[in-house]
Amino acid sequence: MIQLPDPTLSRLFDPRSIAIVGASATPGKIGAMPVTLLRQHGYEGRIIPVNPRADTIQGLAAAPSLNALDQDVDLAILAVPAAHAAQALQSARPGQLGAAVIFTSGYAETGAAGAEQQQRLCGIARERGIRLLGPNCLGFMNVRRKVYATFSPAPANGAVPAGGIAMVSQSGAFGAYAYSMARERGLGLSHWISTGNEADIDVADCIEWLAHDADTRVIMAYMEGCRDGAKLRRALAAARAAGKPVVVTKIGRTQAGAQAAASHTAALAGDDAVYDALFRQYGALRARTIEEFFNLGYALDTWPRPPAGRRLGIFTISGGVGALMADEAQDAGLALPEPAAAAQARLLAQVPFASARNPVDVTGQAISEPGLLLATADDILADGRYDALAVFLAAAGSSEALWPTFENFAREMQARHPGVPLAISALFTPERRRQLERLGCLVFPDPSAAIRTLGTVAQLADHADAAAEPAASSDDPPPLLDAYNEVQAMDLLRRAGLPATPCILATDADAAVRAAAELDGPVALKIVSPDIVHKSDVGGVKLNVAGEDALRRAHADILDAVRRHAPEARIDGVLVAPMAPKGVECIAGVHCDPVFGPVVMFGLGGVFVEVLKDVSFRLAPFGRDEALAMIREIKGYALLQGARGTPPCDVDALADALAALSRFAHARRDDFSSVEINPLLALPAGQGALALDAVVMRAGLNR
Amino acid sequence: MIQLPDPTLSRLFDPRSIAIVGASATPGKIGAMPVTLLRQHGYEGRIIPVNPRADTIQGLAAAPSLNALDQDVDLAILAVPAAHAAQALQSARPGQLGAAVIFTSGYAETGAAGAEQQQRLCGIARERGIRLLGPNCLGFMNVRRKVYATFSPAPANGAVPAGGIAMVSQSGAFGAYAYSMARERGLGLSHWISTGNEADIDVADCIEWLAHDADTRVIMAYMEGCRDGAKLRRALAAARAAGKPVVVTKIGRTQAGAQAAASHTAALAGDDAVYDALFRQYGALRARTIEEFFNLGYALDTWPRPPAGRRLGIFTISGGVGALMADEAQDAGLALPEPAAAAQARLLAQVPFASARNPVDVTGQAISEPGLLLATADDILADGRYDALAVFLAAAGSSEALWPTFENFAREMQARHPGVPLAISALFTPERRRQLERLGCLVFPDPSAAIRTLGTVAQLADHADAAAEPAASSDDPPPLLDAYNEVQAMDLLRRAGLPATPCILATDADAAVRAAAELDGPVALKIVSPDIVHKSDVGGVKLNVAGEDALRRAHADILDAVRRHAPEARIDGVLVAPMAPKGVECIAGVHCDPVFGPVVMFGLGGVFVEVLKDVSFRLAPFGRDEALAMIREIKGYALLQGARGTPPCDVDALADALAALSRFAHARRDDFSSVEINPLLALPAGQGALALDAVVMRAGLNR
Repeated sequence: MIQLPDPTLSRLFDPRSIAIVGASATPGKIGAMPVTLLRQHGYEGRIIPVNPRADTIQGLAAAPSLNALDQDVDLAILAVPAAHAAQALQSARPGQLGAAVIFTSGYAETGAAGAEQQQRLCGIARERGIRLLGPNCLGFMNVRRKVYATFSPAPANGAVPAGGIAMVSQSGAFGAYAYSMARERGLGLSHWISTGNEADIDVADCIEWLAHDADTRVIMAYMEGCRDGAKLRRALAAARAAGKPVVVTKIGRTQAGAQAAASHTAALAGDDAVYDALFRQYGALRARTIEEFFNLGYALDTWPRPPAGRRLGIFTISGGVGALMADEAQDAGLALPEPAAAAQARLLAQVPFASARNPVDVTGQAISEPGLLLATADDILADGRYDALAVFLAAAGSSEALWPTFENFAREMQARHPGVPLAISALFTPERRRQLERLGCLVFPDPSAAIRTLGTVAQLADHADAAAEPAASSDDPPPLLDAYNEVQAMDLLRRAGLPATPCILATDADAAVRAAAELDGPVALKIVSPDIVHKSDVGGVKLNVAGEDALRRAHADILDAVRRHAPEARIDGVLVAPMAPKGVECIAGVHCDPVFGPVVMFGLGGVFVEVLKDVSFRLAPFGRDEALAMIREIKGYALLQGARGTPPCDVDALADALAALSRFAHARRDDFSSVEINPLLALPAGQGALALDAVVMRAGLNR
Repeated sequence: MIQLPDPTLSRLFDPRSIAIVGASATPGKIGAMPVTLLRQHGYEGRIIPVNPRADTIQGLAAAPSLNALDQDVDLAILAVPAAHAAQALQSARPGQLGAAVIFTSGYAETGAAGAEQQQRLCGIARERGIRLLGPNCLGFMNVRRKVYATFSPAPANGAVPAGGIAMVSQSGAFGAYAYSMARERGLGLSHWISTGNEADIDVADCIEWLAHDADTRVIMAYMEGCRDGAKLRRALAAARAAGKPVVVTKIGRTQAGAQAAASHTAALAGDDAVYDALFRQYGALRARTIEEFFNLGYALDTWPRPPAGRRLGIFTISGGVGALMADEAQDAGLALPEPAAAAQARLLAQVPFASARNPVDVTGQAISEPGLLLATADDILADGRYDALAVFLAAAGSSEALWPTFENFAREMQARHPGVPLAISALFTPERRRQLERLGCLVFPDPSAAIRTLGTVAQLADHADAAAEPAASSDDPPPLLDAYNEVQAMDLLRRAGLPATPCILATDADAAVRAAAELDGPVALKIVSPDIVHKSDVGGVKLNVAGEDALRRAHADILDAVRRHAPEARIDGVLVAPMAPKGVECIAGVHCDPVFGPVVMFGLGGVFVEVLKDVSFRLAPFGRDEALAMIREIKGYALLQGARGTPPCDVDALADALAALSRFAHARRDDFSSVEINPLLALPAGQGALALDAVVMRAGLNR
């Protein structure tokens, strides 16, 4: 199905006519800026200043109000105080106005009264079919179409050239700073959008629209929170489907940052771990800092395509800095395979004291023998064993005399190995830097920044063939209960495809004997009661029970002990289950995020979850690959691979269990608010996984 | 005791006469560069070209050889092939030459034959009392004294001004790149030194000399490895004692980096974790990247003094970026205390929609009300609750109109709060940036880099009053045994002041009964044999034994079982010990690093050590504060603070035990090669720590 961009947003971002309400002739005034910028940059549509107290503004005929105009207007820019903004929208005839950008502040960001005014504004716009950007925003620019619907002074200090990067920022200050940095870094923009209070259009709307925009290759987004999780997921999915990488900075990574974000933004910040899961899942690259944000945008914009995998070649004329780069590569999760033996031998034959492994260090010899650089790099890349190449030229990079060598190196490498992105570290002048960039090379003064950027961008390869989300299970669900004891919970999960250990609720001793006979081998008996949480404390557990006599005795003992210790407890019966095999104890759970819905958690039991908070998250539903990524993400993963002398675990079975749990959680999101499987036992490889106990909570029921 | 700089190094780095052996008149030749640079920069001492085939070189009278000169020479620069270098040194009369810088390569870096030649060079120099820098180095510069004993082209592309930063780099390529970056960043240097193969003078020698150098305020070092750990410790201690911060980049942090380093450098790389411990212990700031290296040097050079602690104020005109900075602050281990209530109230009275907590966000209001910035920041700092202030000015920072406001802000803040370092994030022009730097302000385009730098530099406060190393225990040690069983090992550690649980070796049942009576309460019995490692497997352990009969029975059972399962085992007796109280199991150990000697390790038992490798290291000996830092450093520290419902542990007692272990390890470093205490039990607060079992290994004995 071909997705089309939202036509109301197309009308906003690519308007044929723009009215500026509150247009001013006084330079520096908010209402003067858009008129000036539109004319300065040569906007080709119609510009209509609206001001009741002037006939012309900056030489253009002005209208006293929107309804005084007889034609339709695609976009109105409201540069008037809050009191007049609603009035201006109201003055538009139904259908006359496509969208409005509202610079005005004093709305939701100031408190309850402002939020009410903002609601009113939205109501008026909705009635008239007007889309709103803002209020309390810096507006937007469509650089190619020369639409400067902004009062940010940033473009006045020097415009950014048209290019393939779209920037969308909830924060105007961040956006303006990013615009200025883009200019400094020489990046070209397609659009620059600030969403402000997001009364109507939010960052997700913009991402989705940009995913369909022909001028945009890379989407860079800054966000503080999100109110509509489903829309954001749809937007990120659209960008992924369109092959447009998304770089995102979201504040509130840490507790301190989240507190600061909450005190700042009106939007619900939500749980950062869930955002992190979302970005991983949809292949959006999260940048922690403005520097990273730009390095990623720069890389994705400069390279014809991102690296196809994680195999990095490091190529230097300094062994020490090569090792520094190798350190960074390991931190960044990149692999450093050795060059082919023949290529190594050829280098060592020429330069006996070179290092021919990876990092490849041709030594300072590269300076006296300029051909060495290209010949060696070309040789090393010949058999396709590298996905990217990072080159460090040391201080020689600044040499006048060697520039032709370096320029030729970059040109030839791009020509001969177009599929292998190239990053060069050296201190070039800005002009030379831009020359290399035009060839498709990245240039970084700091070699570690080059490696870090490569490491992050390589994540895109993991998602290159990301499967569509798995269909939710379509089984006819059994009728809902108000509450689920552990036997019912396990039954529910078993039907959903999870490997729940068999367990049978026996309401009397005979039933327990029959159950044990069914299960074969010694069994565990446990009291089942909605009123008893700590079963052992009331004598409610007997392990390793074998034989009918022992079984009847254990059953009686349990009931006696429970009646003695908890005489008031309601008793559902006694659970009979096989004794658990040996395995590594894991925990899997689902909770319902208020913004994104059901989120699946995975971790190892014991100190891993309780002390180290070593858990990973994904939004439901997801498939096995995502589940595997989720399992590999935890720090204690080595334990599942067979650390401590135990055999490696059946990680595939764990992944299948998590994927099944995610499908269940998604399909039944209206029925259940949480699931906890503890322990979920990871058995040795080939033997599967086993849920030993589970608690499920109904949604919407006060319990 | 006042330490004086090594006079032989002073003669090298501040020479009154310099001979250039292999001096050349041909521009671009290695032998031409130092003569040209020395004259160009106006070196005031005597320059003596040495060349047997010319009477004058670059207009200076040349000597045919060193021994043809009748006067002494402080420094000879050898710019001749390896074959002639030894000859040149040999030609110096004993006592004539103070030091030589040897550019020549082809020595140890090329393999065994080269290493032998290098040895020969050293022998010749040692005989004649000549100190050597190099070979295979780029030489050095003393910027203030205009000594350019280098053939690096870096200063020819533009000289770095004189300043307070000394740079010393084992790698010439790194050094040359760092020189160029210093020029780009506008940093001033006192010295620039490349040590190359370090046949004689190494990075540690240079650090120690620079610690005493009056021109140097900050020492920036790059190293690949170290062969003399004691010297490096002495050097870092000297710098700390002189109050000169050391910023260090050492390659080989990761396995990939260490492999790369090992294949590159002739020096022993050693265990990176030990270097890391060393740097922490001596307050040297480790930089992972060239960028970090420079940010740290820049901060330490620009600020009159580093922050006195970790309390950071974040001050912005953008709430979103404030939250981004708060995220980074939390990652960097900085605290974000709130401003005083009165100061918060005053800000909110002026700007009701500001955020008055920390981050303090005065909002865009700062642009329309320029006085707001200074008044608020001043108010917030008034009661001394911040150690540093990080300010983000967003795109407004680039505004022409607002520059006077910002400049005044920086000037006034420095004047009113001189003890509080200030870092400003904005996109200033280079000139304005330098203006702010001259006022003592840091400027960073990336606010996160500002915070990260502050976080690292704040580590210096932890070491501001670092106590001298504790005196090693001076007890008369008992006579050495060839091997120690666990009872003897525990006895040894108990005498060294460690809280070893009492344990008595009983050679017969009567002795076991007497021992149990001494210990009071139920006891554990364990077989003691040098041939039995897994005691339980041979029935060699009985726990919780109480009463004489039970004791005799258990003793007999153990001996029976062991004789049956391990008939060949030599038996020392049966160990009697009290049953262990409840506590958190930790592990402490000592191993002997080939470069740095005894290193103490600490970790939590179980998965923490085995799966997560969650351990910390310190070089012995150290005191309680260092031991506390070591304990707090592990990821599982929360467990000792009372996670999982257990009471908090006696961390002080743990620290005392580690400090005692470190003193023992240091004092007896020639006698013992390793100690492992497992478990070292951390008891609840106030109840101490308890070593339950220990293994010690003698040094130098093959076992």
